[in-house]
Amino acid sequence: ATYNIAVLPGDGIGPDVTKEAVRVLELIREVDPEFDIRFTEFNWNSEHYLEHGTMMPEDGLEQLKAFDAILFGAIGDARVADEISIWQLIMPIRKNFRQYVNMRPIKRLAGIESPLKNEAPVDFIVFRENAEGEYSNVGGRLYAEQPQEMAIQNTVITRAGVERITRYAYEYAQATGRKKVTSATKSNAIIHSMKLWDEAVAAVAAEYDGIELESYFIDALAAYFVERPESFDVVVASNLFGDILTDLGAAIVGGLGVTPSGNINPERDFPSMFEAIHGSAPDIAGKGIANPIAQIWSAALMVDHLGRPELAKAIVSAIEQVLGEGKVRTPDLGGDATTEQLGSAIRQAVKEQ
Amino acid sequence: ATYNIAVLPGDGIGPDVTKEAVRVLELIREVDPEFDIRFTEFNWNSEHYLEHGTMMPEDGLEQLKAFDAILFGAIGDARVADEISIWQLIMPIRKNFRQYVNMRPIKRLAGIESPLKNEAPVDFIVFRENAEGEYSNVGGRLYAEQPQEMAIQNTVITRAGVERITRYAYEYAQATGRKKVTSATKSNAIIHSMKLWDEAVAAVAAEYDGIELESYFIDALAAYFVERPESFDVVVASNLFGDILTDLGAAIVGGLGVTPSGNINPERDFPSMFEAIHGSAPDIAGKGIANPIAQIWSAALMVDHLGRPELAKAIVSAIEQVLGEGKVRTPDLGGDATTEQLGSAIRQAVKEQ
Ligand SMILES: CC(C)[C@H](C(=O)O)[C@@H](O)C(=O)O
Ligand SMILES: CC(C)[C@H](C(=O)O)[C@@H](O)C(=O)O
Repeated sequence: ATYNIAVLPGDGIGPDVTKEAVRVLELIREVDPEFDIRFTEFNWNSEHYLEHGTMMPEDGLEQLKAFDAILFGAIGDARVADEISIWQLIMPIRKNFRQYVNMRPIKRLAGIESPLKNEAPVDFIVFRENAEGEYSNVGGRLYAEQPQEMAIQNTVITRAGVERITRYAYEYAQATGRKKVTSATKSNAIIHSMKLWDEAVAAVAAEYDGIELESYFIDALAAYFVERPESFDVVVASNLFGDILTDLGAAIVGGLGVTPSGNINPERDFPSMFEAIHGSAPDIAGKGIANPIAQIWSAALMVDHLGRPELAKAIVSAIEQVLGEGKVRTPDLGGDATTEQLGSAIRQAVKEQ
Repeated sequence: ATYNIAVLPGDGIGPDVTKEAVRVLELIREVDPEFDIRFTEFNWNSEHYLEHGTMMPEDGLEQLKAFDAILFGAIGDARVADEISIWQLIMPIRKNFRQYVNMRPIKRLAGIESPLKNEAPVDFIVFRENAEGEYSNVGGRLYAEQPQEMAIQNTVITRAGVERITRYAYEYAQATGRKKVTSATKSNAIIHSMKLWDEAVAAVAAEYDGIELESYFIDALAAYFVERPESFDVVVASNLFGDILTDLGAAIVGGLGVTPSGNINPERDFPSMFEAIHGSAPDIAGKGIANPIAQIWSAALMVDHLGRPELAKAIVSAIEQVLGEGKVRTPDLGGDATTEQLGSAIRQAVKEQ
């Protein structure tokens, strides 16, 4: 089949790591004529903003709509307010393309040093609500420059929104034989939105047999991630809580540089978007030393989403093999390989599968 | 001087650990006639709720108002919705008594095993905004039982509220010679409330010379807590972010059972409240094995607040000594001592100072 991919390399190390991900996909295309993947690059980033005053053209979403998927680098540049780069690019794509599932696997890998003494295997997956919740632009500032100045920020959570992310998590658990879903809440203190969260999660959980539901307050859950990460299986969390838990999760397995994510539109009426969970890391941008694994892994999630799980598996196996061998490592992994060398080692491993 | 303390032991292990804290204070009273501390106990807890339908009497705050401080155990019981126990007891006290500073020291201690491989000393203090922000009861549920059911939750952040907690953190940093303040934000995604947060923090920071301000997004900051906890000094955070960061901080130093907190009213027009950051741990309640250190340490923060820093120091030194010796340890610390035995070892150490 033919797959049309929109590539948005973005800022900082985004282009460096995205290049390696694209190369891996091109290699697969070479060996598998059934995998006719094609790339269209869009330079919608902070540079674009500085030139044109917008992160993407007015018809940007229109242009992206017809693609089969989006491969996204990273966004963030000291010269542009984060609020602008995020709300003019990532947020409109996530929200308008109804990518309400943000899927982020957290896995301890051979060859990646964990900061924890606990050596138990860690392998869970976070399903983060990605379209509503705490990341809302509803609200505003009152009484600016007066003593009573304040800001009101509205978190808006819908029952349908919580149900669909929870259902996705349960379907995934069922399909993959996972046995427990952990819900992150704070309904003891955030009584309106998180209470609806709890109710909707429980309602969906009741539809599934044989999969346990546990629910923890986010503060306790953050501590448990450190104390016993091996005890988690599938985690379902709101937009903000999922954001925090996935960076934390990546940290406890030692791998912000290796953790991928998929912003999934399950109905497939709009493209899904795949991106590393790390940021644009301006301090190492252009130096050719960024770790491309998170982005290559994100590309693997994309390949899976495109309906080619066996190819996705080959990429992930190649990543695990190269990490396990430990010969080619970028500085964040304690080595001195370049982005390109690590990318090329992974391509080599893909070829040998 | 005479100090009148309201003691609210609460639920679960709250009474067990509070008893030991009170005993330590009584011991100090014995040896120091200038420290005339007196206790009045209030059984306002979940039991009270089950009997009377409220967590505290209608004039509860009125009754507490005249005390010099409040020593609070823990709240939480399976038979009472957390939302009730929290919003009828802890929240009214924190908010009405204007305890807008929640101070939580995070310190690695000899004798407490950290879950991290990194052995660098960790010693920072979190100042959590404690009176406004994400813990607001403003909001509600719309369209209940209809397909469009939703909840709206309003975070309300005031400039004055952010400025006063930030100023408190800076004053503390200045007084104690700490050199850096880290602000937790998420203004890239939560654009109304967290942008005001950033502005107000920066405005206060500008008033102080020689103390660096750094600001991180909460997701990155949670990861940094795991990756390099030794790099933090003073942290200032919103109500929700401070809640998450302090449980996480306690976990990385291995010590939810030892981390204290003070809910401080700096103007002293109402009493401040001191409590362990751990919960009521119903699973071990009544077994006599809860670790009393967090609560004894909280009592030390109280003694400091009452104006007797040298006595507070004696208590903390006693705790550090007993932990360092490692002879008397409750099960959470890997030993088999009882709550009482650990309390008594600490009293003994106080005596020997
Ligand atoms: C850049 C930022 C808005 C984003 C988020 O919070 O969603 C990032 O942290 C992520 O996790 O993808
Ligand atoms: C019990 C709960 C409402 C409380 C909070 O979130 O403030 C607790 O977690 C704490 O940290 O004191």
